[in-house]
Amino acid sequence: MQRHFDAELQLLNQDILQMGSLVEAAIGQVMKALVDRNAPLAEAVKNGDDPINWLEIAIDERCLELLARHQPAGSDLRFIAMALKINNDLERMGDLAVNIAERTLDLLKEPLLKPLIDIPRMSLLAQQMVNDSLDAFVRRDAALARNVCQRDDDVDNLNDQVFRELLTYMISDPKTITRAVDLILVGRHLERIADHATNVAEDVIYLVQGKTVKHHLEERQLAT
Amino acid sequence: MQRHFDAELQLLNQDILQMGSLVEAAIGQVMKALVDRNAPLAEAVKNGDDPINWLEIAIDERCLELLARHQPAGSDLRFIAMALKINNDLERMGDLAVNIAERTLDLLKEPLLKPLIDIPRMSLLAQQMVNDSLDAFVRRDAALARNVCQRDDDVDNLNDQVFRELLTYMISDPKTITRAVDLILVGRHLERIADHATNVAEDVIYLVQGKTVKHHLEERQLAT
Repeated sequence: MQRHFDAELQLLNQDILQMGSLVEAAIGQVMKALVDRNAPLAEAVKNGDDPINWLEIAIDERCLELLARHQPAGSDLRFIAMALKINNDLERMGDLAVNIAERTLDLLKEPLLKPLIDIPRMSLLAQQMVNDSLDAFVRRDAALARNVCQRDDDVDNLNDQVFRELLTYMISDPKTITRAVDLILVGRHLERIADHATNVAEDVIYLVQGKTVKHHLEERQLAT
Repeated sequence: MQRHFDAELQLLNQDILQMGSLVEAAIGQVMKALVDRNAPLAEAVKNGDDPINWLEIAIDERCLELLARHQPAGSDLRFIAMALKINNDLERMGDLAVNIAERTLDLLKEPLLKPLIDIPRMSLLAQQMVNDSLDAFVRRDAALARNVCQRDDDVDNLNDQVFRELLTYMISDPKTITRAVDLILVGRHLERIADHATNVAEDVIYLVQGKTVKHHLEERQLAT
Protein backbone atom coordinates (compact mmCIF):
# COMPACT_ATOMS: atom_id res chain seq x y z
CA MET A 1 0.00 0.00 0.00
CA GLN A 2 2.70 2.49 1.02
CA ARG A 3 4.79 1.58 -2.02
CA HIS A 4 1.80 2.10 -4.25
CA PHE A 5 1.17 5.47 -2.59
CA ASP A 6 4.81 6.49 -3.06
CA ALA A 7 4.53 5.64 -6.76
CA GLU A 8 1.46 7.84 -7.00
CA LEU A 9 3.22 10.72 -5.25
CA GLN A 10 6.00 10.30 -7.77
CA LEU A 11 3.48 10.68 -10.60
CA LEU A 12 2.17 13.86 -8.99
CA ASN A 13 5.74 15.13 -8.81
CA GLN A 14 6.13 14.44 -12.53
CA ASP A 15 2.86 16.16 -13.41
CA ILE A 16 3.96 19.31 -11.59
CA LEU A 17 7.30 19.24 -13.40
CA GLN A 18 5.55 18.70 -16.72
CA MET A 19 3.30 21.67 -15.98
CA GLY A 20 6.39 23.71 -15.07
CA SER A 21 8.13 22.82 -18.36
CA LEU A 22 5.09 23.88 -20.37
CA VAL A 23 4.95 27.20 -18.53
CA GLU A 24 8.67 27.85 -18.87
CA ALA A 25 8.50 27.04 -22.58
CA ALA A 26 5.57 29.45 -23.03
CA ILE A 27 7.46 32.31 -21.35
CA GLY A 28 10.62 31.58 -23.34
CA GLN A 29 8.75 31.40 -26.62
CA VAL A 30 6.71 34.54 -26.14
CA MET A 31 9.86 36.48 -25.32
CA LYS A 32 11.53 35.07 -28.43
CA ALA A 33 8.46 36.15 -30.43
CA LEU A 34 8.77 39.67 -29.01
CA VAL A 35 12.50 39.98 -29.64
CA ASP A 36 12.50 38.35 -33.11
CA ARG A 37 9.22 40.05 -34.06
CA ASN A 38 7.74 36.68 -34.90
CA ALA A 39 3.93 36.99 -34.96
CA PRO A 40 3.14 33.33 -35.73
CA LEU A 41 5.14 32.30 -32.66
CA ALA A 42 3.21 34.79 -30.50
CA GLU A 43 -0.04 33.41 -31.95
CA ALA A 44 1.11 29.91 -31.06
CA VAL A 45 1.67 30.92 -27.41
CA LYS A 46 -1.64 32.79 -27.31
CA ASN A 47 -3.56 29.74 -28.52
CA GLY A 48 -1.36 27.13 -26.90
CA ASP A 49 -2.30 27.15 -23.24
CA ASP A 50 -5.00 24.47 -23.39
CA PRO A 51 -2.53 21.72 -22.38
CA ILE A 52 -1.54 23.80 -19.33
CA ASN A 53 -5.20 24.27 -18.38
CA TRP A 54 -6.01 20.60 -18.81
CA LEU A 55 -3.00 19.56 -16.79
CA GLU A 56 -4.07 21.93 -14.02
CA ILE A 57 -7.42 20.17 -13.77
CA ALA A 58 -5.77 16.73 -13.88
CA ILE A 59 -3.36 17.66 -11.09
CA ASP A 60 -6.14 19.04 -8.90
CA GLU A 61 -8.09 15.84 -9.35
CA ARG A 62 -5.07 13.68 -8.66
CA CYS A 63 -4.43 15.59 -5.42
CA LEU A 64 -8.02 15.21 -4.23
CA GLU A 65 -8.02 11.53 -5.08
CA LEU A 66 -4.76 10.96 -3.22
CA LEU A 67 -6.12 12.77 -0.17
CA ALA A 68 -9.37 10.81 -0.29
CA ARG A 69 -7.92 7.36 -0.87
CA HIS A 70 -4.76 7.45 1.25
CA GLN A 71 -5.64 9.99 3.93
CA PRO A 72 -1.98 10.92 4.30
CA ALA A 73 -0.45 12.74 7.24
CA GLY A 74 2.78 14.62 7.97
CA SER A 75 5.09 15.39 5.06
CA ASP A 76 3.00 13.48 2.50
CA LEU A 77 -0.01 15.60 3.38
CA ARG A 78 2.08 18.77 3.16
CA PHE A 79 3.41 17.62 -0.21
CA ILE A 80 -0.08 17.15 -1.67
CA ALA A 81 -1.40 20.42 -0.23
CA MET A 82 1.61 22.29 -1.64
CA ALA A 83 1.14 20.56 -5.02
CA LEU A 84 -2.41 21.98 -5.08
CA LYS A 85 -1.08 25.47 -4.43
CA ILE A 86 1.90 25.26 -6.80
CA ASN A 87 -0.45 23.98 -9.50
CA ASN A 88 -2.52 27.14 -9.10
CA ASP A 89 0.53 29.38 -9.39
CA LEU A 90 1.80 27.59 -12.48
CA GLU A 91 -1.54 27.92 -14.21
CA ARG A 92 -1.55 31.69 -13.54
CA MET A 93 1.94 31.96 -15.01
CA GLY A 94 0.58 30.27 -18.14
CA ASP A 95 -2.19 32.88 -18.30
CA LEU A 96 0.37 35.65 -17.94
CA ALA A 97 2.38 34.22 -20.86
CA VAL A 98 -0.83 34.39 -22.92
CA ASN A 99 -1.32 38.02 -21.82
CA ILE A 100 2.23 38.82 -22.94
CA ALA A 101 1.50 37.12 -26.29
CA GLU A 102 -1.54 39.39 -26.77
CA ARG A 103 0.54 42.50 -26.05
CA THR A 104 3.27 41.19 -28.37
CA LEU A 105 0.82 40.77 -31.25
CA ASP A 106 -0.21 44.42 -30.76
CA LEU A 107 3.41 45.51 -30.63
CA LEU A 108 4.29 43.68 -33.85
CA LYS A 109 1.78 45.81 -35.77
CA GLU A 110 4.08 48.80 -35.32
CA PRO A 111 7.82 49.45 -35.77
CA LEU A 112 10.15 48.34 -32.98
CA LEU A 113 10.37 50.74 -30.03
CA LYS A 114 14.10 50.99 -29.29
CA PRO A 115 15.75 47.77 -28.14
CA LEU A 116 12.93 46.81 -25.71
CA ILE A 117 14.98 48.32 -22.88
CA ASP A 118 15.47 45.78 -20.06
CA ILE A 119 12.41 43.64 -20.80
CA PRO A 120 14.35 40.66 -22.19
CA ARG A 121 16.60 40.77 -19.11
CA MET A 122 13.57 40.85 -16.80
CA SER A 123 12.18 37.87 -18.63
CA LEU A 124 15.41 35.90 -18.22
CA LEU A 125 15.44 36.62 -14.49
CA ALA A 126 11.78 35.59 -14.16
CA GLN A 127 12.30 32.40 -16.18
CA GLN A 128 15.30 31.49 -14.05
CA MET A 129 13.20 31.99 -10.92
CA VAL A 130 10.49 29.69 -12.28
CA ASN A 131 13.09 27.10 -13.22
CA ASP A 132 14.88 27.24 -9.87
CA SER A 133 11.67 27.19 -7.83
CA LEU A 134 10.69 23.93 -9.54
CA ASP A 135 14.21 22.56 -9.15
CA ALA A 136 13.96 23.38 -5.46
CA PHE A 137 10.63 21.57 -5.38
CA VAL A 138 12.01 18.38 -6.96
CA ARG A 139 15.15 18.33 -4.86
CA ARG A 140 13.35 19.57 -1.71
CA ASP A 141 16.06 22.24 -1.59
CA ALA A 142 15.08 24.97 0.89
CA ALA A 143 18.31 26.92 0.37
CA LEU A 144 17.66 27.27 -3.37
CA ALA A 145 14.03 28.21 -2.62
CA ARG A 146 15.19 30.97 -0.27
CA ASN A 147 17.53 32.21 -2.95
CA VAL A 148 14.58 32.43 -5.38
CA CYS A 149 12.61 34.53 -2.88
CA GLN A 150 15.51 36.96 -2.56
CA ARG A 151 15.64 37.51 -6.32
CA ASP A 152 12.06 38.78 -6.44
CA ASP A 153 13.25 42.28 -5.51
CA ASP A 154 15.62 42.39 -8.50
CA VAL A 155 12.73 41.82 -10.88
CA ASP A 156 10.60 44.41 -9.07
CA ASN A 157 13.38 46.99 -9.29
CA LEU A 158 14.00 46.27 -12.96
CA ASN A 159 10.28 46.65 -13.61
CA ASP A 160 10.16 50.03 -11.85
CA GLN A 161 13.11 51.15 -13.96
CA VAL A 162 11.50 49.93 -17.21
CA PHE A 163 8.28 51.68 -16.21
CA ARG A 164 9.97 55.03 -15.59
CA GLU A 165 12.00 54.80 -18.77
CA LEU A 166 8.90 54.08 -20.86
CA LEU A 167 7.07 57.04 -19.31
CA THR A 168 9.95 59.27 -20.43
CA TYR A 169 9.69 57.91 -23.98
CA MET A 170 5.99 58.60 -24.14
CA ILE A 171 6.31 62.13 -22.80
CA SER A 172 9.12 63.06 -25.19
CA ASP A 173 7.47 61.42 -28.21
CA PRO A 174 3.70 60.82 -28.07
CA LYS A 175 3.93 58.64 -31.20
CA THR A 176 5.41 55.94 -28.97
CA ILE A 177 2.46 55.90 -26.55
CA THR A 178 0.61 52.77 -27.59
CA ARG A 179 3.81 50.74 -27.88
CA ALA A 180 5.16 52.03 -24.58
CA VAL A 181 1.90 51.15 -22.79
CA ASP A 182 2.05 47.65 -24.27
CA LEU A 183 5.61 47.27 -23.01
CA ILE A 184 4.64 48.57 -19.55
CA LEU A 185 2.01 45.83 -19.40
CA VAL A 186 4.53 43.20 -20.56
CA GLY A 187 6.79 44.35 -17.71
CA ARG A 188 3.93 44.03 -15.22
CA HIS A 189 3.13 40.53 -16.44
CA LEU A 190 6.77 39.46 -16.06
CA GLU A 191 6.83 40.91 -12.56
CA ARG A 192 3.72 38.87 -11.71
CA ILE A 193 5.37 35.72 -13.08
CA ALA A 194 8.28 36.35 -10.71
CA ASP A 195 5.77 36.82 -7.86
CA HIS A 196 4.23 33.45 -8.61
CA ALA A 197 7.67 31.80 -8.73
CA THR A 198 8.27 33.33 -5.30
CA ASN A 199 5.01 31.78 -4.07
CA VAL A 200 6.20 28.39 -5.34
CA ALA A 201 9.53 28.85 -3.57
CA GLU A 202 7.74 29.78 -0.33
CA ASP A 203 5.65 26.64 -0.63
CA VAL A 204 8.82 24.58 -1.11
CA ILE A 205 10.30 26.03 2.08
CA TYR A 206 7.13 25.15 3.93
CA LEU A 207 7.22 21.67 2.44
CA VAL A 208 10.82 21.04 3.49
CA GLN A 209 10.89 22.79 6.82
CA GLY A 210 7.25 22.86 7.86
CA LYS A 211 7.77 26.59 8.32
CA THR A 212 5.74 29.44 6.85
CA VAL A 213 7.85 32.14 5.21
CA LYS A 214 4.97 33.91 3.52
CA HIS A 215 4.56 37.63 3.97
CA HIS A 216 7.92 37.76 5.74
CA LEU A 217 6.32 36.28 8.81
CA GLU A 218 9.71 34.98 9.87
CA GLU A 219 11.34 38.38 10.14
CA ARG A 220 8.27 39.61 11.93
CA GLN A 221 8.41 36.77 14.40
CA LEU A 222 12.11 37.32 14.94
CA ALA A 223 11.54 41.03 15.47
CA THR A 224 8.95 40.60 18.18
CA MET B 1 -16.21 13.22 16.72
CA GLN B 2 -18.28 14.10 13.63
CA ARG B 3 -20.02 16.90 15.52
CA HIS B 4 -16.68 18.28 16.61
CA PHE B 5 -15.46 18.09 13.00
CA ASP B 6 -18.58 19.88 11.74
CA ALA B 7 -17.96 22.66 14.25
CA GLU B 8 -14.40 23.00 12.95
CA LEU B 9 -15.60 23.15 9.34
CA GLN B 10 -17.96 25.90 10.44
CA LEU B 11 -15.01 27.84 11.84
CA LEU B 12 -13.19 27.44 8.53
CA ASN B 13 -16.29 28.75 6.77
CA GLN B 14 -16.25 31.80 9.05
CA ASP B 15 -12.55 32.42 8.49
CA ILE B 16 -13.06 32.45 4.72
CA LEU B 17 -15.97 34.87 5.08
CA GLN B 18 -13.92 37.07 7.38
CA MET B 19 -11.11 37.08 4.81
CA GLY B 20 -13.68 37.93 2.13
CA SER B 21 -15.03 40.89 4.14
CA LEU B 22 -11.54 42.30 4.65
CA VAL B 23 -10.84 42.04 0.92
CA GLU B 24 -14.16 43.58 -0.08
CA ALA B 25 -13.61 46.42 2.38
CA ALA B 26 -10.12 47.05 0.96
CA ILE B 27 -11.45 47.27 -2.61
CA GLY B 28 -14.33 49.53 -1.56
CA GLN B 29 -12.06 51.82 0.43
CA VAL B 30 -9.37 52.17 -2.19
CA MET B 31 -12.00 53.11 -4.79
CA LYS B 32 -13.46 55.65 -2.35
CA ALA B 33 -9.94 57.04 -1.87
CA LEU B 34 -9.55 57.36 -5.65
CA VAL B 35 -12.93 59.01 -6.22
CA ASP B 36 -12.79 61.34 -3.18
CA ARG B 37 -9.06 62.02 -3.69
CA ASN B 38 -8.41 60.94 -0.12
CA ALA B 39 -4.69 60.16 0.25
CA PRO B 40 -4.77 59.06 3.92
CA LEU B 41 -7.43 56.49 3.06
CA ALA B 42 -5.30 55.17 0.18
CA GLU B 43 -2.33 55.01 2.59
CA ALA B 44 -4.48 53.04 5.03
CA VAL B 45 -5.32 50.45 2.36
CA LYS B 46 -1.70 50.29 1.22
CA ASN B 47 -0.48 49.57 4.74
CA GLY B 48 -3.50 47.64 5.93
CA ASP B 49 -3.18 44.23 4.33
CA ASP B 50 -1.29 42.54 7.17
CA PRO B 51 -4.52 41.15 8.70
CA ILE B 52 -5.41 39.63 5.31
CA ASN B 53 -1.96 38.04 5.04
CA TRP B 54 -2.07 36.67 8.57
CA LEU B 55 -5.53 35.28 8.05
CA GLU B 56 -4.34 33.58 4.86
CA ILE B 57 -1.65 31.75 6.82
CA ALA B 58 -4.09 30.83 9.60
CA ILE B 59 -6.60 29.43 7.09
CA ASP B 60 -3.94 27.37 5.31
CA GLU B 61 -2.85 25.93 8.62
CA ARG B 62 -6.40 25.21 9.70
CA CYS B 63 -7.02 23.34 6.42
CA LEU B 64 -3.89 21.23 6.77
CA GLU B 65 -4.71 20.43 10.37
CA LEU B 66 -8.26 19.40 9.48
CA LEU B 67 -6.96 17.17 6.69
CA ALA B 68 -4.37 15.60 8.99
CA ARG B 69 -6.57 15.05 12.02
CA HIS B 70 -9.87 14.07 10.45
CA GLN B 71 -8.81 12.57 7.13
CA PRO B 72 -12.11 13.59 5.56
CA ALA B 73 -13.56 12.17 2.36
CA GLY B 74 -16.26 13.16 -0.13
CA SER B 75 -17.79 16.60 0.18
CA ASP B 76 -15.89 17.50 3.39
CA LEU B 77 -12.62 16.85 1.60
CA ARG B 78 -13.76 18.90 -1.38
CA PHE B 79 -14.78 21.70 0.97
CA ILE B 80 -11.36 21.86 2.63
CA ALA B 81 -9.49 21.64 -0.68
CA MET B 82 -11.64 24.44 -2.13
CA ALA B 83 -11.11 26.52 1.02
CA LEU B 84 -7.34 26.25 0.38
CA LYS B 85 -7.80 27.49 -3.17
CA ILE B 86 -10.32 30.23 -2.35
CA ASN B 87 -7.97 31.44 0.39
CA ASN B 88 -5.24 31.87 -2.22
CA ASP B 89 -7.51 33.87 -4.52
CA LEU B 90 -8.70 36.13 -1.72
CA GLU B 91 -5.16 36.89 -0.67
CA ARG B 92 -4.26 37.90 -4.26
CA MET B 93 -7.29 40.20 -4.37
CA GLY B 94 -5.95 41.85 -1.23
CA ASP B 95 -2.58 42.35 -2.99
CA LEU B 96 -4.36 43.87 -5.97
CA ALA B 97 -6.19 46.33 -3.69
CA VAL B 98 -2.75 47.35 -2.36
CA ASN B 99 -1.52 47.79 -5.95
CA ILE B 100 -4.51 50.02 -6.69
CA ALA B 101 -3.73 52.04 -3.53
CA GLU B 102 -0.16 52.60 -4.80
CA ARG B 103 -1.44 53.85 -8.17
CA THR B 104 -4.02 56.01 -6.38
CA LEU B 105 -1.34 57.69 -4.29
CA ASP B 106 0.52 58.53 -7.52
CA LEU B 107 -2.67 59.82 -9.11
CA LEU B 108 -3.47 62.08 -6.16
CA LYS B 109 -0.23 64.00 -6.72
CA GLU B 110 -1.72 65.45 -9.90
CA PRO B 111 -5.04 67.08 -10.86
CA LEU B 112 -7.98 64.78 -11.57
CA LEU B 113 -8.03 63.30 -15.06
CA LYS B 114 -11.63 63.72 -16.21
CA PRO B 115 -14.21 61.80 -14.19
CA LEU B 116 -12.15 58.56 -14.05
CA ILE B 117 -14.16 57.25 -17.01
CA ASP B 118 -15.75 53.89 -16.21
CA ILE B 119 -13.28 52.84 -13.51
CA PRO B 120 -15.71 53.31 -10.58
CA ARG B 121 -18.29 51.25 -12.47
CA MET B 122 -15.76 48.50 -13.13
CA SER B 123 -14.93 48.49 -9.46
CA LEU B 124 -18.58 48.14 -8.46
CA LEU B 125 -19.01 45.20 -10.84
CA ALA B 126 -15.86 43.54 -9.50
CA GLN B 127 -16.86 44.09 -5.86
CA GLN B 128 -20.30 42.65 -6.55
CA MET B 129 -18.66 39.58 -8.11
CA VAL B 130 -16.47 39.11 -5.03
CA ASN B 131 -19.48 39.51 -2.75
CA ASP B 132 -21.67 37.13 -4.74
CA SER B 133 -18.96 34.49 -5.12
CA LEU B 134 -18.61 34.36 -1.34
CA ASP B 135 -22.37 34.37 -0.89
CA ALA B 136 -22.51 31.43 -3.29
CA PHE B 137 -19.82 29.74 -1.20
CA VAL B 138 -21.72 30.14 2.10
CA ARG B 139 -25.06 29.10 0.64
CA ARG B 140 -23.53 26.42 -1.62
CA ASP B 141 -25.43 28.14 -4.43
CA ALA B 142 -24.18 26.85 -7.80
CA ALA B 143 -26.65 28.98 -9.79
CA LEU B 144 -25.34 32.19 -8.24
CA ALA B 145 -21.77 31.00 -8.81
CA ARG B 146 -22.52 30.42 -12.50
CA ASN B 147 -23.99 33.88 -12.71
CA VAL B 148 -20.75 35.32 -11.29
CA CYS B 149 -18.71 33.48 -13.96
CA GLN B 150 -20.88 34.99 -16.70
CA ARG B 151 -20.27 38.53 -15.45
CA ASP B 152 -16.52 38.23 -15.93
CA ASP B 153 -16.88 39.18 -19.61
CA ASP B 154 -18.63 42.44 -18.69
CA VAL B 155 -15.66 43.53 -16.62
CA ASP B 156 -13.24 42.48 -19.36
CA ASN B 157 -15.16 44.48 -21.97
CA LEU B 158 -15.36 47.51 -19.71
CA ASN B 159 -11.62 47.29 -19.15
CA ASP B 160 -10.90 47.14 -22.89
CA GLN B 161 -13.08 50.20 -23.34
CA VAL B 162 -11.34 52.11 -20.52
CA PHE B 163 -7.97 51.13 -21.97
CA ARG B 164 -8.82 52.43 -25.46
CA GLU B 165 -10.30 55.64 -24.10
CA LEU B 166 -7.20 56.35 -22.01
CA LEU B 167 -4.93 55.76 -25.00
CA THR B 168 -6.92 58.41 -26.90
CA TYR B 169 -6.47 60.87 -24.02
CA MET B 170 -2.73 60.35 -23.95
CA ILE B 171 -2.33 60.75 -27.68
CA SER B 172 -4.38 63.94 -27.83
CA ASP B 173 -2.76 65.45 -24.73
CA PRO B 174 0.65 64.10 -23.65
CA LYS B 175 0.35 65.96 -20.34
CA THR B 176 -2.12 63.27 -19.28
CA ILE B 177 0.30 60.38 -19.89
CA THR B 178 1.41 59.50 -16.37
CA ARG B 179 -2.11 59.72 -15.01
CA ALA B 180 -3.60 57.74 -17.88
CA VAL B 181 -1.00 54.98 -17.43
CA ASP B 182 -1.82 54.83 -13.72
CA LEU B 183 -5.52 54.50 -14.56
CA ILE B 184 -4.80 51.79 -17.15
CA LEU B 185 -3.04 49.85 -14.40
CA VAL B 186 -5.95 50.39 -11.99
CA GLY B 187 -8.25 48.99 -14.68
CA ARG B 188 -6.00 45.95 -15.08
CA HIS B 189 -5.97 45.33 -11.34
CA LEU B 190 -9.78 45.50 -11.18
CA GLU B 191 -10.01 43.09 -14.08
CA ARG B 192 -7.71 40.69 -12.21
CA ILE B 193 -9.89 40.98 -9.10
CA ALA B 194 -12.88 39.94 -11.20
CA ASP B 195 -10.81 37.01 -12.55
CA HIS B 196 -10.10 35.85 -9.01
CA ALA B 197 -13.79 36.17 -8.07
CA THR B 198 -14.51 33.98 -11.10
CA ASN B 199 -12.01 31.42 -9.79
CA VAL B 200 -13.82 31.41 -6.44
CA ALA B 201 -17.16 30.92 -8.20
CA GLU B 202 -15.72 28.02 -10.23
CA ASP B 203 -14.50 26.42 -7.03
CA VAL B 204 -17.98 26.81 -5.52
CA ILE B 205 -19.53 25.02 -8.51
CA TYR B 206 -17.02 22.22 -8.10
CA LEU B 207 -17.79 22.07 -4.39
CA VAL B 208 -21.54 21.85 -4.91
CA GLN B 209 -21.71 19.71 -8.00
CA GLY B 210 -18.39 17.87 -7.97
CA LYS B 211 -18.00 19.15 -11.51
CA THR B 212 -15.09 21.09 -12.98
CA VAL B 213 -16.14 24.19 -14.90
CA LYS B 214 -12.67 25.65 -15.21
CA HIS B 215 -11.39 26.68 -18.61
CA HIS B 216 -14.84 26.08 -20.10
CA LEU B 217 -14.19 22.37 -19.99
CA GLU B 218 -17.92 21.76 -19.87
CA GLU B 219 -18.65 23.36 -23.23
CA ARG B 220 -15.68 21.55 -24.69
CA GLN B 221 -16.89 18.22 -23.37
CA LEU B 222 -20.39 18.90 -24.66
CA ALA B 223 -18.99 19.83 -28.07
CA THR B 224 -17.10 16.59 -28.56
